[in-house]
Amino acid sequence: MFWFSLKEPAVHPDRYFSPDPAQKRIALELYQSVAALPLVCPHGHVDARLFAQPDVHFANPAQLFIIPDHYVFRMLFSRGVPLEHLGVPRADGAPVEADPRRVWQTFAEHFYLFQGTPTGLWLADELQGVFGVTHKLSGATAAAIYDQVAAQLAAPGFTPRELYARFNIEVLCTTDSAADPLTAHQAIRASGWGGQIRPTFRPDAVLDLAAPGWQSNTEALGQAAGRAIHDYAAFVAALEDRRAFFKSQGATATDHGVLTPFTTVLAPGEPEAIFQRALHGTASAADAAQFMGHMLVEMARMSVDDGLVMQLHPGALRSHHAAHLERFGPNTGADIPVGVEFTRNLQPLLGRFGLDQRLRLVLFTLDETAYSRELAPLAGFYPSVRLGPPWWFFDSWNGMRRFFEQVIETAGLYNTAGFNDDTRAFASIPARHDLWRRAAADWLAGLVVRRMLDEAGAYPMARALAYDLARQTYRLA
Amino acid sequence: MFWFSLKEPAVHPDRYFSPDPAQKRIALELYQSVAALPLVCPHGHVDARLFAQPDVHFANPAQLFIIPDHYVFRMLFSRGVPLEHLGVPRADGAPVEADPRRVWQTFAEHFYLFQGTPTGLWLADELQGVFGVTHKLSGATAAAIYDQVAAQLAAPGFTPRELYARFNIEVLCTTDSAADPLTAHQAIRASGWGGQIRPTFRPDAVLDLAAPGWQSNTEALGQAAGRAIHDYAAFVAALEDRRAFFKSQGATATDHGVLTPFTTVLAPGEPEAIFQRALHGTASAADAAQFMGHMLVEMARMSVDDGLVMQLHPGALRSHHAAHLERFGPNTGADIPVGVEFTRNLQPLLGRFGLDQRLRLVLFTLDETAYSRELAPLAGFYPSVRLGPPWWFFDSWNGMRRFFEQVIETAGLYNTAGFNDDTRAFASIPARHDLWRRAAADWLAGLVVRRMLDEAGAYPMARALAYDLARQTYRLA
Amino acid sequence: MFWFSLKEPAVHPDRYFSPDPAQKRIALELYQSVAALPLVCPHGHVDARLFAQPDVHFANPAQLFIIPDHYVFRMLFSRGVPLEHLGVPRADGAPVEADPRRVWQTFAEHFYLFQGTPTGLWLADELQGVFGVTHKLSGATAAAIYDQVAAQLAAPGFTPRELYARFNIEVLCTTDSAADPLTAHQAIRASGWGGQIRPTFRPDAVLDLAAPGWQSNTEALGQAAGRAIHDYAAFVAALEDRRAFFKSQGATATDHGVLTPFTTVLAPGEPEAIFQRALHGTASAADAAQFMGHMLVEMARMSVDDGLVMQLHPGALRSHHAAHLERFGPNTGADIPVGVEFTRNLQPLLGRFGLDQRLRLVLFTLDETAYSRELAPLAGFYPSVRLGPPWWFFDSWNGMRRFFEQVIETAGLYNTAGFNDDTRAFASIPARHDLWRRAAADWLAGLVVRRMLDEAGAYPMARALAYDLARQTYRLA
Repeated sequence: MFWFSLKEPAVHPDRYFSPDPAQKRIALELYQSVAALPLVCPHGHVDARLFAQPDVHFANPAQLFIIPDHYVFRMLFSRGVPLEHLGVPRADGAPVEADPRRVWQTFAEHFYLFQGTPTGLWLADELQGVFGVTHKLSGATAAAIYDQVAAQLAAPGFTPRELYARFNIEVLCTTDSAADPLTAHQAIRASGWGGQIRPTFRPDAVLDLAAPGWQSNTEALGQAAGRAIHDYAAFVAALEDRRAFFKSQGATATDHGVLTPFTTVLAPGEPEAIFQRALHGTASAADAAQFMGHMLVEMARMSVDDGLVMQLHPGALRSHHAAHLERFGPNTGADIPVGVEFTRNLQPLLGRFGLDQRLRLVLFTLDETAYSRELAPLAGFYPSVRLGPPWWFFDSWNGMRRFFEQVIETAGLYNTAGFNDDTRAFASIPARHDLWRRAAADWLAGLVVRRMLDEAGAYPMARALAYDLARQTYRLA
Repeated sequence: MFWFSLKEPAVHPDRYFSPDPAQKRIALELYQSVAALPLVCPHGHVDARLFAQPDVHFANPAQLFIIPDHYVFRMLFSRGVPLEHLGVPRADGAPVEADPRRVWQTFAEHFYLFQGTPTGLWLADELQGVFGVTHKLSGATAAAIYDQVAAQLAAPGFTPRELYARFNIEVLCTTDSAADPLTAHQAIRASGWGGQIRPTFRPDAVLDLAAPGWQSNTEALGQAAGRAIHDYAAFVAALEDRRAFFKSQGATATDHGVLTPFTTVLAPGEPEAIFQRALHGTASAADAAQFMGHMLVEMARMSVDDGLVMQLHPGALRSHHAAHLERFGPNTGADIPVGVEFTRNLQPLLGRFGLDQRLRLVLFTLDETAYSRELAPLAGFYPSVRLGPPWWFFDSWNGMRRFFEQVIETAGLYNTAGFNDDTRAFASIPARHDLWRRAAADWLAGLVVRRMLDEAGAYPMARALAYDLARQTYRLA
Repeated sequence: MFWFSLKEPAVHPDRYFSPDPAQKRIALELYQSVAALPLVCPHGHVDARLFAQPDVHFANPAQLFIIPDHYVFRMLFSRGVPLEHLGVPRADGAPVEADPRRVWQTFAEHFYLFQGTPTGLWLADELQGVFGVTHKLSGATAAAIYDQVAAQLAAPGFTPRELYARFNIEVLCTTDSAADPLTAHQAIRASGWGGQIRPTFRPDAVLDLAAPGWQSNTEALGQAAGRAIHDYAAFVAALEDRRAFFKSQGATATDHGVLTPFTTVLAPGEPEAIFQRALHGTASAADAAQFMGHMLVEMARMSVDDGLVMQLHPGALRSHHAAHLERFGPNTGADIPVGVEFTRNLQPLLGRFGLDQRLRLVLFTLDETAYSRELAPLAGFYPSVRLGPPWWFFDSWNGMRRFFEQVIETAGLYNTAGFNDDTRAFASIPARHDLWRRAAADWLAGLVVRRMLDEAGAYPMARALAYDLARQTYRLA
């Protein structure tokens, strides 16, 4: 089964654009006006260690494309391919497929599953754009393409630092736990290399009393901050210390992954009482929910003080299948979204800090129904609120179109946060930004051909979406 | 930053239509077949006093376009512009910008924020269509455009009555509290002027026990009805009296703004018990919810009796930010929607009166997910139910498209209520109806080019959407 | 009022396709590549008795098109036409219109209500495609068209068996209660006729303790299974027996219509305790909910054992209006959807059996918000899960488009279940499959013209949607 025929390249110059000739012409011109702009990557999960030394190389094509990327392997798993066959490590250390060529072959034989999906389009773009692969990936071509990619990965020009330059990345933000010493970030800064790799402060593991290992996580936080954490005040002080440290290492943002955006302001004494129960291992699920809601307001307060942009990523029920979690650990494809309510949940936080422009709160959602109903109205009123781009499952052509069509009319373009790729797959970054820039150009061109926007006026909007808004929102400018 | 280039008019003859030549041709012809029909305005918030005297003039461009219109000023507020700079009055009477030219200048400098939004398109259409402004509004052109508009507002032909005629309005319904003496409406009827300005009975302030000033509102209701309201029976009788009075002044409808469409039939004695608690200031939030649910069923019962069309507008959480409410009062941009459930909530009301064609219940929503899931199926079964057009944030090109695509297949066209502009900005009325008529024509043309509708059959549907359905639904025909 | 003009046929060869010439050409070619494939009908409500004898004839046009089809008569009812005028039988046996010509006339006069609806398009297609009616149905043409259709119904070539062959149906599954003796199915198998009519095991009436007549339903189940059901173990054994019987009669699937997809694993002893309360008539609503949640997990367990594909149809609040139910019975137009949560509700069931490929769970929804948020992520992880096609109100051009655009990017095409027509209107089956095949072709062509899919790669996907996926999903291949 072929996806793309052999007569035409996998990746077309006018891909993603409307077939209408007038709209396509405008979309292409808008796209070309922003295609050469640097990539701003304010949120993602690339490993900073890739850049700590100049001579890092990716191990092999399977390690680069498949094994660490749950976007990819979950699709094969859903069709009955055991993750062991794809080399995904087991939590118990039991053996899994160790030959990257066999992993690649299995993947290639199932590549047709990705037809019509963003993952498939990114992969095709990445293979052609980064590695010059012009044949289509299939069982028949797998071995030859493996060789071609593997040879390049070992060759000059394919270290992460070299790719960073070639990808024209301006800044890349990582995501790091509160206790992280940021060793790699410090090494990068000390190395004199010109790339910008900035950390992001993500304290989920200590804010969520129900997180696995909360007590040891909190102990590690205390050690990192040089404080013994025996009470709530010390906990808050340690968080403030770590934020300051992250900021000193280039961080401009925090990030918070939560099941729900519930926020609350607890009465004096309550946070301490809950915190003590947590230290003694007797905190309840209700305690954990109340505490997280309270700490999100605290995080907003600290953002008012230190200027770190606050990101909120709610709505993923993590690790839906208990036995799968036990076998393969978290982030292995089993995170499933749930409905999310923002209007009432954020009222306590926004009631306190929502009108303060020192706060910058970037909201994401896995529940698209909130776009037009809650998120756009919130962003269209509160000076502190910006809407993050389509996230995770919605980082796709249709997801972007729905975002533009459901958000902009109410929120306006300038209350959105531009793009971020949110990926752990470093080599997919150009393909992801390219999709966004093309989708934005096509959407703007659609407004122009409907006379809802003047063609000249579309250019600064295309630029804002491609570049300016991400820099400004994340205070990177 | 220019929105529209100087070479082309801000408002194109084929605006909003699909770029596909076949679809555009059909859409344009359908639109032209209804463009000259009178405007029927069965629901809105225009002040009746504008029409009470023949020589009323709008004060200035800032008062006309900006200061009373939260659709407009919230967008600037969200970007950090204090409402005081826009002349929005403070509740405490503290001074705000009093120079309308400065307000206009600030607005013009931020007009680019409205690109791609319905508000921006209405404003451009209104400036060109009503005032002949052909230059684009920006900081540079602000002063000249201010002068041009201000001169016209003072000139002959720009009184509300003259604009009413020029806009080709057939009927305009206002929204009025239950105790309102309808002085302006009476003056209009007494004046012999030919325009139809009809009141609408909106008793939220007395049906909602938790509304600010409920006790004085209820006292005012009693005074208006000439009854002392010391018990529930007198309260119901006063409401019936006022409905009769409104009807005598031309009203054909009631309107109910509620957080949720919860309805219930309370056991005998319960309404009285709750009402007494409310009179004594001891009613709880649960009391208020139960009472509103009960009174909505009562309103349906009265509609069966007196034939007033019952409108239900649920889903806005009003005044999301407490301090902002205190500073600027209600209706100043901080109303945020919440999810709404119709199927179960309306079952008690519809179980009683839903099959009775004397009831006409027009349902609106700020939760678009209800369109296909709940509202269209309800309207496609109950003879009493009609679906109101896209409301508030969704009164836009995309909002209309979603409405057509999610509602009509199940509800059918003839169970919808046509258009209403729901605006307090009188001069924007033609632009809003024009968008609806164009969006409807484009949607119908899309069905025609897909052979899902015969071209001849589309004309009566375009007319129904533009004119007939609003008249028939609101019993104005 | 004419729907289609007299100059052109009601049903166009390129109906449903995009007006864009490039997209239309590709869509048409894709459609033509699958148009002649047999129809696979794995889920529906056609009466098996139609096929039990070779000489069955449909009574008349009203019986064929109107009286048994709530999709049709609810629309007229919503506009004030009493169901009695349409010949719909009353539960109390009171007289209703008995003249099929008068029923047909009333229907024809209201046929314009169906403009732009899938029901209207199916009916037009069916009249032309099955009965050769080229004039448009209206009050004026009603009598002549009645005669034309009635004559054909009495003529050779229009028995259900002949139409089955002419429609090119490969297999047709019915829906049958757990206690059904499947007499008609047995007669068909014994008759030597070559059509495949397979039963489907739908035990709602005995799994739902709150269903009308649960005790007699359960007694009937026991009789059918040849077991006295005095305890939970016998109940489970009887269900297993009946599943085996259905399987012996050709069944490959079960079906479960529930208000919510709540599942739970009750502690040992709890099912028996609830079951005893139900036998004694003292089970509560909470009991019924818990029991259904438990039995769904049991059904999954049995599917693992016997291989019957498990279908779940949640989200319809049945018989919304009590007096209407009393007057006309169930399935008479008053079923209204509610919001549905899948992620948390299915966790107990999927936690037990979700990774077991012997389970095949096909999920349907009346809440389209679940497509992108919950259903596609679930199908994109769990090997057991497939997504059923757009159901009921969403079995339409727009419903299909939303399904493709919201599901495939995350779930992938091969985790969907192809099409099923879910109809009780046998003669509408070709029109329904034709719409699906055209909508799929148009969607794929849209990907091709946006270069998101290679044209050659689209052909197997079109075939999968039209034919392969339904056969494979339902284990009919």
